[in-house]
Amino acid sequence: MVVELISVGTEILLGNIVNTNAAYLSEKCAALGLSCYHQSVVGDNEGRLEETVRLALSRSDIVILSGGLGPTKDDLTKEVTAKVFGKALYEDTHTKERIAGYFSQMRSGQVTENNWKQAMVPEGAKVVDNHNGTAPGLIIEENGKTAILLPGPPNEIKPMFERDIVPYLRSLEPEGIYSKMVKICSIGESKAETMVSDLLENQSNPTIAPYAKTGEVHFRVTAKAADEREADGLIEPVIRYLYRIFGDKIYTTSEEVTLEDAVVELLKENELTLTTAESCTAGLLAGRIMNVAGASKVYNEGYITYSNEAKERILSVSHETLERYGAVSPETAAEMAEGAARAAKASASLSVTGIAGPDGGTKEKPVGLVYISCQVRGKMRTEEFRFTGNREKNREYAVVRALTLLWEELMEV
Amino acid sequence: MVVELISVGTEILLGNIVNTNAAYLSEKCAALGLSCYHQSVVGDNEGRLEETVRLALSRSDIVILSGGLGPTKDDLTKEVTAKVFGKALYEDTHTKERIAGYFSQMRSGQVTENNWKQAMVPEGAKVVDNHNGTAPGLIIEENGKTAILLPGPPNEIKPMFERDIVPYLRSLEPEGIYSKMVKICSIGESKAETMVSDLLENQSNPTIAPYAKTGEVHFRVTAKAADEREADGLIEPVIRYLYRIFGDKIYTTSEEVTLEDAVVELLKENELTLTTAESCTAGLLAGRIMNVAGASKVYNEGYITYSNEAKERILSVSHETLERYGAVSPETAAEMAEGAARAAKASASLSVTGIAGPDGGTKEKPVGLVYISCQVRGKMRTEEFRFTGNREKNREYAVVRALTLLWEELMEV
Repeated sequence: MVVELISVGTEILLGNIVNTNAAYLSEKCAALGLSCYHQSVVGDNEGRLEETVRLALSRSDIVILSGGLGPTKDDLTKEVTAKVFGKALYEDTHTKERIAGYFSQMRSGQVTENNWKQAMVPEGAKVVDNHNGTAPGLIIEENGKTAILLPGPPNEIKPMFERDIVPYLRSLEPEGIYSKMVKICSIGESKAETMVSDLLENQSNPTIAPYAKTGEVHFRVTAKAADEREADGLIEPVIRYLYRIFGDKIYTTSEEVTLEDAVVELLKENELTLTTAESCTAGLLAGRIMNVAGASKVYNEGYITYSNEAKERILSVSHETLERYGAVSPETAAEMAEGAARAAKASASLSVTGIAGPDGGTKEKPVGLVYISCQVRGKMRTEEFRFTGNREKNREYAVVRALTLLWEELMEV
Repeated sequence: MVVELISVGTEILLGNIVNTNAAYLSEKCAALGLSCYHQSVVGDNEGRLEETVRLALSRSDIVILSGGLGPTKDDLTKEVTAKVFGKALYEDTHTKERIAGYFSQMRSGQVTENNWKQAMVPEGAKVVDNHNGTAPGLIIEENGKTAILLPGPPNEIKPMFERDIVPYLRSLEPEGIYSKMVKICSIGESKAETMVSDLLENQSNPTIAPYAKTGEVHFRVTAKAADEREADGLIEPVIRYLYRIFGDKIYTTSEEVTLEDAVVELLKENELTLTTAESCTAGLLAGRIMNVAGASKVYNEGYITYSNEAKERILSVSHETLERYGAVSPETAAEMAEGAARAAKASASLSVTGIAGPDGGTKEKPVGLVYISCQVRGKMRTEEFRFTGNREKNREYAVVRALTLLWEELMEV
């Protein structure tokens, strides 16, 4: 079944808010095995909204509209959709009572007149109670086409979707969709794709889709099947194939696991503790590791050492090394990692020193030059990177490369 | 002129990523005085993409497409748009050289074959250099219709849009649109809006549009005028009015200046140096301050102290304080800020300690409880916050609140 999303609201067209509802609904629909080929955003304008709804219904089975169900004159989603389906509106007693009840619970108490507009529903529509606001959800079905109207505020749409819309959509779709995500670090998107181009060309069920992330490539392997067991039978050979190609560069096959999750997990498994010494990334590396809930089990402290003086005093980088090789050098990176591990009494450490830009580059040491050292139980590895982005991108890549380096070293422990 | 946005990418339809590009482009187009009535998202599918491009060109003057310009077979935006305009593709020597240069700067060096696909451009198209990636931007014009093709990654599309697309769009629109951004911290969106509701209701030229950011509210004041001087005459009274209402909560009226920019600027002006001591934010605060190029002039070192032991040893937080009040307490926050300033010999310091979640909360100290201390030349201020988001949001808000606190204190110096 094909689903299509329409987000209604001038505030989205003006960029006043980010359309997170669409991302939420897309992910939920994909997980339910519904195909989504189109999403659109249209303002609170009768003519354009009607056109958009008609087009969506002509090419998709289910159209989910969000927003524009409120009490104001601007809110037209229900009126326009009812018109497209040729349905009149009537006052729904149950909804009217629910709205009255909602307001009686609030401190202000009185219902302004325009709120009763929200009790008007299209003939034959299923009314879905809103437990977190006034406007009800609505399901209109006719001639094999379905329109689902949902309120715009995220704290209303999400609980309503989970509670009532998911079971409704499940009942419509007998075929199951199952997917696994293969996540790869330390290899570029185009190179990764070249390596599996035969697989990408000859896919049908399961399908394989590459996603480029900063410093990572993810492949989603998706199968249509009657049940999970049949899906596994289709997906597993592809996963094994990807393992043969990318081998030890795959850090997870789980949707939820991030690179920092994988690193923290390996640290825990090996009963290691980590510390960080950052110059150009200045805390971003530590901040990302600590995204992982419970990372405090393997990380106690870290250092941001921008000045040479701080590198000497806190990390015991030798004055001579800084003089001779400079702050951005493999020698300094290694001493930073070593000194950090000693100061924090940690069994593993990462250090980053580099020139993020836009200033500070020279011919020998250009902007983007970054040295990363990784030390695990006394074994040191230092790598040189030459990033070509702006300040923000260089720092972001340095963080991913540092995590990748540590992950690789931890896989060898 | 009417502009329409098309975001290309199956990963958006699947909800793998939030469509932040659309919000960014919408806001920019609104600021340029362009009307936007439609946005759509379509996957990497030739037929559907073609249909979507044709529909958009039939109803809008300018169609901005983002995404689908990469090196892989999935990336079809250029090919499809060229087909719609009836243009053949040819290899652009300049772009080929630029791509070769991009790869030669990278350590891996070699360009995989599929990358050359990005040097193919439609006949007659304007090529816009990508300074942060390989795929160039493209502008195709014909019969009064324009398609602008931009790369999908936010760190590529944003600098390209600012640098080359804004001037191009300005050149199309003879009527001048001028705007100023008033950025406010430490006040909520709905409260800020209520405070200027009369202004928001009775606006025509200039218009005032509120934008909610994490922990901030921005008001864009936009005027249509023959020249900048006339525009200033329209905009300035509104800015003065906003200053009367929000007074010392406005940290800038410049589009480009961020809260961390404003903070670093004030530190420089006052010849202060800053250090940070972070627990739950674990480097994110320092990382954000160091976004500012040249922030190294005011920041030498910082500390990430997750464990109590680290708080004691590095920051000299007293054992008694930790025992008596706990790590998440105003007392610990204040001692962290004090100790950090002493250790780093800094004249200003910020500390953050809190429970980011999802675990670690108790009835007395729930998830989201965060204490932030700010010390400037010996003057200490500590604030309690109760955030209600998930781990990520709580940490993000803590960073903004810490910056806001420091900004407020620096304004009093």
